[in-house]
Amino acid sequence: MKKNGGNNGMKFRGTHILSADQFSRDDLKHIFHIADQIAPYAQRKKITTVLHGAILSNMFYEPSTRTRISFGCAFNLLGGYVRETATPEQSSVAKGESLYDTARVLSGYSDIIVLRHPEAGSAETFSAASRVPVINGGDGDNEHPSQALLDLYTIYKEFHKKEKNGAASIDGLRIALVGDLKYGRAVHSLCRLLALGRNIKVNLISPHHLALPQKIEDILTAAGHEVNRNHNMVSGITHVDIIYASRIQSERMLPSEANQFNTDMTDDLYRKTYHLNKAIYTQHCEPNTVIMHPLPRDSRSGLDVLDDDLNEHPNLAIFRQTDNGTIIRMCLFALIFNVVDQIDTYTYLPAWKNLRKSNV
Amino acid sequence: MKKNGGNNGMKFRGTHILSADQFSRDDLKHIFHIADQIAPYAQRKKITTVLHGAILSNMFYEPSTRTRISFGCAFNLLGGYVRETATPEQSSVAKGESLYDTARVLSGYSDIIVLRHPEAGSAETFSAASRVPVINGGDGDNEHPSQALLDLYTIYKEFHKKEKNGAASIDGLRIALVGDLKYGRAVHSLCRLLALGRNIKVNLISPHHLALPQKIEDILTAAGHEVNRNHNMVSGITHVDIIYASRIQSERMLPSEANQFNTDMTDDLYRKTYHLNKAIYTQHCEPNTVIMHPLPRDSRSGLDVLDDDLNEHPNLAIFRQTDNGTIIRMCLFALIFNVVDQIDTYTYLPAWKNLRKSNV
Amino acid sequence: MKKNGGNNGMKFRGTHILSADQFSRDDLKHIFHIADQIAPYAQRKKITTVLHGAILSNMFYEPSTRTRISFGCAFNLLGGYVRETATPEQSSVAKGESLYDTARVLSGYSDIIVLRHPEAGSAETFSAASRVPVINGGDGDNEHPSQALLDLYTIYKEFHKKEKNGAASIDGLRIALVGDLKYGRAVHSLCRLLALGRNIKVNLISPHHLALPQKIEDILTAAGHEVNRNHNMVSGITHVDIIYASRIQSERMLPSEANQFNTDMTDDLYRKTYHLNKAIYTQHCEPNTVIMHPLPRDSRSGLDVLDDDLNEHPNLAIFRQTDNGTIIRMCLFALIFNVVDQIDTYTYLPAWKNLRKSNV
Repeated sequence: MKKNGGNNGMKFRGTHILSADQFSRDDLKHIFHIADQIAPYAQRKKITTVLHGAILSNMFYEPSTRTRISFGCAFNLLGGYVRETATPEQSSVAKGESLYDTARVLSGYSDIIVLRHPEAGSAETFSAASRVPVINGGDGDNEHPSQALLDLYTIYKEFHKKEKNGAASIDGLRIALVGDLKYGRAVHSLCRLLALGRNIKVNLISPHHLALPQKIEDILTAAGHEVNRNHNMVSGITHVDIIYASRIQSERMLPSEANQFNTDMTDDLYRKTYHLNKAIYTQHCEPNTVIMHPLPRDSRSGLDVLDDDLNEHPNLAIFRQTDNGTIIRMCLFALIFNVVDQIDTYTYLPAWKNLRKSNV
Repeated sequence: MKKNGGNNGMKFRGTHILSADQFSRDDLKHIFHIADQIAPYAQRKKITTVLHGAILSNMFYEPSTRTRISFGCAFNLLGGYVRETATPEQSSVAKGESLYDTARVLSGYSDIIVLRHPEAGSAETFSAASRVPVINGGDGDNEHPSQALLDLYTIYKEFHKKEKNGAASIDGLRIALVGDLKYGRAVHSLCRLLALGRNIKVNLISPHHLALPQKIEDILTAAGHEVNRNHNMVSGITHVDIIYASRIQSERMLPSEANQFNTDMTDDLYRKTYHLNKAIYTQHCEPNTVIMHPLPRDSRSGLDVLDDDLNEHPNLAIFRQTDNGTIIRMCLFALIFNVVDQIDTYTYLPAWKNLRKSNV
Repeated sequence: MKKNGGNNGMKFRGTHILSADQFSRDDLKHIFHIADQIAPYAQRKKITTVLHGAILSNMFYEPSTRTRISFGCAFNLLGGYVRETATPEQSSVAKGESLYDTARVLSGYSDIIVLRHPEAGSAETFSAASRVPVINGGDGDNEHPSQALLDLYTIYKEFHKKEKNGAASIDGLRIALVGDLKYGRAVHSLCRLLALGRNIKVNLISPHHLALPQKIEDILTAAGHEVNRNHNMVSGITHVDIIYASRIQSERMLPSEANQFNTDMTDDLYRKTYHLNKAIYTQHCEPNTVIMHPLPRDSRSGLDVLDDDLNEHPNLAIFRQTDNGTIIRMCLFALIFNVVDQIDTYTYLPAWKNLRKSNV
């Protein structure tokens, strides 16, 4: 693996990853460069044991399959061990333990901790007490920085692949954000990273009461980007490079908001207004427009923003997105442990052949 | 390890294992041959790392200790990593995610997936979307192929051991199936494999409303086997090589069936009719008759078909059965990854001595 | 690593660890000697793979984060694999399976088992049926021997560090036990080990109805130690080397006891009587008095015996205690597998640098 290089080669050594805010434009360039080099390991072309002996405590105090297993796989793929909590009931938290105590104790057992917790701000409180680096795996409706990084990495790769853009960057990107922009922490963290690009156009498409918070919009406008609010989905998705759809998270709505939503939205109106399917996509979108979604999709009765009938469409990048998640998380671990330059030394070919069919 | 050999040496490379139906008579012979060679690794006589670097996603959307831990151990014993979901609540399924999305995503993280799911047919739906091989770890009352294989492997070994049979086969076997034959998926899958033998005699012993489904019985008769329905347990178990007892699964009965069962069966009548204990076994069975059970047994108030008072009997094979489960699952992994011929190369002796007492 | 040495070098090979009662004074000396040698591995100064290929089944049928993850990490740090159950619902126990069956089956899959179970005596029943060694990870209000060992090891190290004691022993120790002394299994197991010291002074400080059971007190007095019952906390903690505080475990109280407790204890009275904070500590305790607690602390509304305002005090040993837990559990595994003398041979330096800040 090429030298870590650059001024920020050591920048993430031993650091907590708590917010998308902590990354600069140069950091993203550096992280994506490392990610490109680490990708063959995620794709099982070769195997590394560079983190053998290290233990990740993968602490999920909120249900999650995708993010939990993605972090666990990423650590295993670097050769490390994973210990895990997968449900709130398993935790000492039920006996009234503070985040401080939990962090002090767990950071004595493990070498790094990923924390998913229902309370906004919990990751910061936890990391302040921890003796080892902490990665925020999602704290309530606040932040989910590894999701933002994998989203931006996906945009970068999809945008680059389409050759609209000779250099590998997101400058000049046109993107539509569709769905619940108020409670979607993935959207919030993504906006913070988009702000680091140049000359970005962002179309915001959501029900009124689920609009992007003003302070997040301000970050985009302060960076000089063009921001449009579209209450009509079709006009907002017509001339963009990326449609980033997200689930309406009714479990995070206040009761009054849920009532309002249910009153406003008959199923039929909802489908016409915030539901992207193959017919609408084909009729209105440019041929290269890529569709993303942070997942999970709610596939019951077609209530999600994104229909299942686009599942086999080559521009549907949602599963390339989750594949990129493993790469980005491997990358974060490698940077925090400062082992990027050691990976090559601890590389070998596996006895078995990769069985995975490549993604569409 | 001996050469994989034979025409079907590559047959299972990269395949899904969804149903007992997919195995031929030759396949079973091949699988049990490999199983005999892999057994010393399950018994910790030597260690292999042939699957080092590969990740199993062990996804259990229904409670299970035995099957979940057995698959996990089998993968570890071949040197692989295991990521896991152990409860439905941990899953994105709670947020309405489709099996399609879950399969696409997880198959990007892992190299193979074991799925236990409450819905019949779920394993097939899931495998169709998966980019990596899927093993059905039990889908509702439908199938549980690795259980059927370990059951048949146990029959093969026990039958062979008793030297009733010079060649290692199950031809000529006499077996009694006792208990819930309607909802027991282990029984259904086992019958599909028994049908591949020659000249088998099957005694079916169950309450009327928990009888073996006609279509399963038809598979046995179509293969030319002798099938008898015995509503009296004693007459059915008198002249057999194997008694295969199974738990009455009240959680799978319809309410009307449960009522019927409770009306018909006073505790006393039940014990006399479908309860095998030491006294009945000693009085009525041949001295070599082997007792099997897919487990778990319900040991509360003696309600299971199999009494605890036979626990130390040498013909009780139920724990040899679970031991064989590890061997069969290692075997399936080795065949799917096509590494049978590589195992020897990645073998070494452990630093520690095996602490396990051998089974009765 | 130094030779195992001594007469009891092999004593723990293949044994169950069920009760603090099974350790002699010489055993403790031996265990703590091995623990001191194993500590650098827990601190990631070097890595060992001595148990590679072995599988721990870490079976927690009661919620636990600390103990479960500590045992899992300890096994990983010796190079072994960990399979796990983290909630009662995951278990076959829900289907009525006996401890006998569970033990027979799991001991066929794994090389060693840690069992946490809500019923007193369950670990002994389970171990009698198991084919591999079993460590009691806490059985109801009965025993928790690894906690007792780590507590005593912590006392030994803290006491020694303070140089009140030239030789490394706990002879002459003065200790105050504060809080729920009736239901606290950690306290009971610790008392059994304290009894092995010489010339110990024990102050018992608890509400009347949560007093230490007479039979435990008898063990201390029979060993010739001085035991005082103090219903006033301040007088009991004034001249001691160690204050061992423990949580009032309301979940283990009988309803009548809980009512009595709530009637007797206004919040204000409680705080004055059984609540140790910085002000009380500073005013009444000797400058070297060390504070311990088996954790978790209940940090909601200051209801625990130990206040959070002592968190940064250098004499607060509660997180050194949990760090010692990993060492002690590694030590138990190494002794049971009889690999103490092999560790050196399987040692190497990791590719990564330890990121952990040392404990206060």
